[in-house]
Amino acid sequence: MDVEQFRKAGYQAIDRICDYYYSLQEKSVVSKVEPGYLRGQIPLTPPEEGEDFQVIADDYQKLIAPGLTHWQHPSFFAYFPTSCTFEGILGDLYASSMACNPGFNWSCSPACTELEAIVMDWAADLLGLSDAFKNSSGVGGGVIQTTASDSALVTVVAARSLYLSRHPDTKMEDLVIYVTTQTHSLGAKAALVLGLRLRSIDVTQEDSYSLRVATVGTTSTGAVDNLPEIREVVKDYPSLWVHIDSAWAGSALACPENRDKLYLNEINAFAYSFCSNFHKWGLVNFDCSTLWVRDRKHLTDALDITPPFLRTKHGDAGTVIDYRNWHLGLGRRFRSLKLWFVLRGYGVSGFQSYIRQCIAMNGVFAKLVEKSDILEFVTKPSLALSVFRVVPKLESEKQQALSQESLNELNRLFYGRISARDDIMLTQTSLNGIFCVRLAVGASRTTEKHMHDAYSVIEKEAKAAIEVWDQTVNGVALIG
Amino acid sequence: MDVEQFRKAGYQAIDRICDYYYSLQEKSVVSKVEPGYLRGQIPLTPPEEGEDFQVIADDYQKLIAPGLTHWQHPSFFAYFPTSCTFEGILGDLYASSMACNPGFNWSCSPACTELEAIVMDWAADLLGLSDAFKNSSGVGGGVIQTTASDSALVTVVAARSLYLSRHPDTKMEDLVIYVTTQTHSLGAKAALVLGLRLRSIDVTQEDSYSLRVATVGTTSTGAVDNLPEIREVVKDYPSLWVHIDSAWAGSALACPENRDKLYLNEINAFAYSFCSNFHKWGLVNFDCSTLWVRDRKHLTDALDITPPFLRTKHGDAGTVIDYRNWHLGLGRRFRSLKLWFVLRGYGVSGFQSYIRQCIAMNGVFAKLVEKSDILEFVTKPSLALSVFRVVPKLESEKQQALSQESLNELNRLFYGRISARDDIMLTQTSLNGIFCVRLAVGASRTTEKHMHDAYSVIEKEAKAAIEVWDQTVNGVALIG
Repeated sequence: MDVEQFRKAGYQAIDRICDYYYSLQEKSVVSKVEPGYLRGQIPLTPPEEGEDFQVIADDYQKLIAPGLTHWQHPSFFAYFPTSCTFEGILGDLYASSMACNPGFNWSCSPACTELEAIVMDWAADLLGLSDAFKNSSGVGGGVIQTTASDSALVTVVAARSLYLSRHPDTKMEDLVIYVTTQTHSLGAKAALVLGLRLRSIDVTQEDSYSLRVATVGTTSTGAVDNLPEIREVVKDYPSLWVHIDSAWAGSALACPENRDKLYLNEINAFAYSFCSNFHKWGLVNFDCSTLWVRDRKHLTDALDITPPFLRTKHGDAGTVIDYRNWHLGLGRRFRSLKLWFVLRGYGVSGFQSYIRQCIAMNGVFAKLVEKSDILEFVTKPSLALSVFRVVPKLESEKQQALSQESLNELNRLFYGRISARDDIMLTQTSLNGIFCVRLAVGASRTTEKHMHDAYSVIEKEAKAAIEVWDQTVNGVALIG
Repeated sequence: MDVEQFRKAGYQAIDRICDYYYSLQEKSVVSKVEPGYLRGQIPLTPPEEGEDFQVIADDYQKLIAPGLTHWQHPSFFAYFPTSCTFEGILGDLYASSMACNPGFNWSCSPACTELEAIVMDWAADLLGLSDAFKNSSGVGGGVIQTTASDSALVTVVAARSLYLSRHPDTKMEDLVIYVTTQTHSLGAKAALVLGLRLRSIDVTQEDSYSLRVATVGTTSTGAVDNLPEIREVVKDYPSLWVHIDSAWAGSALACPENRDKLYLNEINAFAYSFCSNFHKWGLVNFDCSTLWVRDRKHLTDALDITPPFLRTKHGDAGTVIDYRNWHLGLGRRFRSLKLWFVLRGYGVSGFQSYIRQCIAMNGVFAKLVEKSDILEFVTKPSLALSVFRVVPKLESEKQQALSQESLNELNRLFYGRISARDDIMLTQTSLNGIFCVRLAVGASRTTEKHMHDAYSVIEKEAKAAIEVWDQTVNGVALIG
């Protein structure tokens, strides 16, 4: 493909992306394809001769598009938001067109390192993080990682290295990662990857430990760990590294009204490291997991490996950041560009408006649930996330006799019906044995109408589920 | 930004990328900016109000572009190739515009998982890998990782898990990663991250061990570990996991004439896992590190964590691949799309032509070095990589009296001069104490003329370095 063929194919790609966003609302949220749909439609081996790009682009529309689930659809309420913005798409486009494999050294492409250092300070500012976490402090600093799992892994490696340097006789088996049962699986995965012990309990003073992952806004329910209590417990253990994972909820710190309930002061006072994913609720296309540490040396002490072929005069002189020593891999994409585009395109006020809009939309839904006879919250709605379940309205005696398992059975029926639909997408979770359903708002195109529609669908399927459950499972008579 | 504003900004981005590639040859290869150039040109905090995208796009041209090193420039011979193609850019563009955070579950976006499974089979086919590594085998399989470091980390975690499951009484401290001194730093980094022991020596039978990283085409010199010998040694140790890292050279397996020297038969016969980075020499924009394993269960046994909110009916039924259990993080980008676009756009024959062209260009350079009086190869040129140094032509007595350190001093002078230039980019390395310079060909726009120009520059700077060295360092008279 020569430059002019690229121009033509590029314009067409832009046009097709425009078409996509114009028609998004009319699409099903959920892809209707069945497992294995693509095999049989694509040859088993690559073509011997190159093909015309028009054929390839058309095959994308014909074969791939039908197998996509539309995360930007206004009725997508599953998992968590992954807000995609035009500014983010353009940032990725410029970055990928340079293919400068940037940033493993400063010299690889100075702009990539320098922009990341500055924009991470912008992002810290947006979220209200203390200056101690900024690159301009010269001590702390921020770096873009791929996912919150990577951020957690890097953090655990640094914490382990720090603890072992201070307590060189410690055995690996005595190091423990503390999480709660509601910590994202990234905690368990870090333990699995690193071969460390994991305790899903509250911190107790009897144990020795090297790391505590606390969560501000859990994936499952949006719960916020009690940071003031943790602060009390950990203050006698200076070697304990507290990592705050706020992958989803962190973006809400952009709005001052959320900062107290998300314990910003505590984060600023005692967190060793803090992670928020701008690729979740922060308007930046995947991937952009922002990680800040209070002392960058903890990362580089743990991760610096500089073979001769990566040495440069600036790196040797220590005058520049070599970001490769701040993360697990070596090569890295130029991800700060899209973060810069988004923060400039929206401005602080635009970013705040988006967050407030999502929270308001969840509020619309929450009000409807509160009034409902057959839906109840399992936990208090948190920011833009509601966790609820179906509870039939029965005579009080029968209501009391309902077992947890019977209610779970009802809710599995309900969720089965919801997930058989393609016009809305929600996800399930389990909370201390209670089967429940999550609704997470994040698409910027979601309006009040979509919330009312969502509620109607949910109420309809809840009623239908109760009917089936009543007839086949429970045999309990409904009131009304 | 609304859809029409995006269309305008998108067309402009495409046009500017076209301009970039039209003007690439006239640019300096190396960015001339100094450390800290960007601070002061960008405000310290994000704007309060959103800005017009035209201002942002123009700032990209004005502030960022001057700080980029041009990896696609025909005179970029540093590090390793990171071939960027228009097909790859378009693949990334379509993928990022969907922002479907694909693939952590099949259900997240079925097309993403299904295309990856198919295209990884295509790539295995292209490189001549055995059917045992293909997803269609149902046992082995391929997955796209971010970097070769990630691929190595995943592999080590799986190897450790496998070994411990078979030898449950093993202590973590007794597990060893074997590499050679020329293995990429990814081996050392994996050991550092995982807290495992690393031995940079040849395998000896006295040791117990869990993993051997062998390299086909080292970064430093393009050396190929002696796989037939390793195969002999390891056959008595079925628990030893042999990972073949061929991050750079793996793409050359696409050409049948390279397969014997890269030991393809051995790879197919006994490697547990194999990694090649299509984002290096494989025409795909960063990132696209392809990892194949002989038994996918080794990955999922080590890495499967499925919290309730990620459970789906298809995943529970085991009818689909959930790629999140094949790598370290959770979220993942839709990277198979660009690999698909590239393999279709080039076809097998186009891919082979590109590889052969790079090798031929290195051959042009190598012929010139062979004829030179003052340059010599430190190792035999390997594929598209030459590793050489300056050696002055002296009377034989004086030549013999030259110390290694004195020659190293000369070559540091030489490399200092080369790296002060902005019209060519090479990198240094060190080989058993010998300071040497690497020239790696990979840009698709590199022609014979660029190789002759590169040689002229190198010869000129070598002569100038010899002169300075002769006067100030060595005091040895030059002949002629």
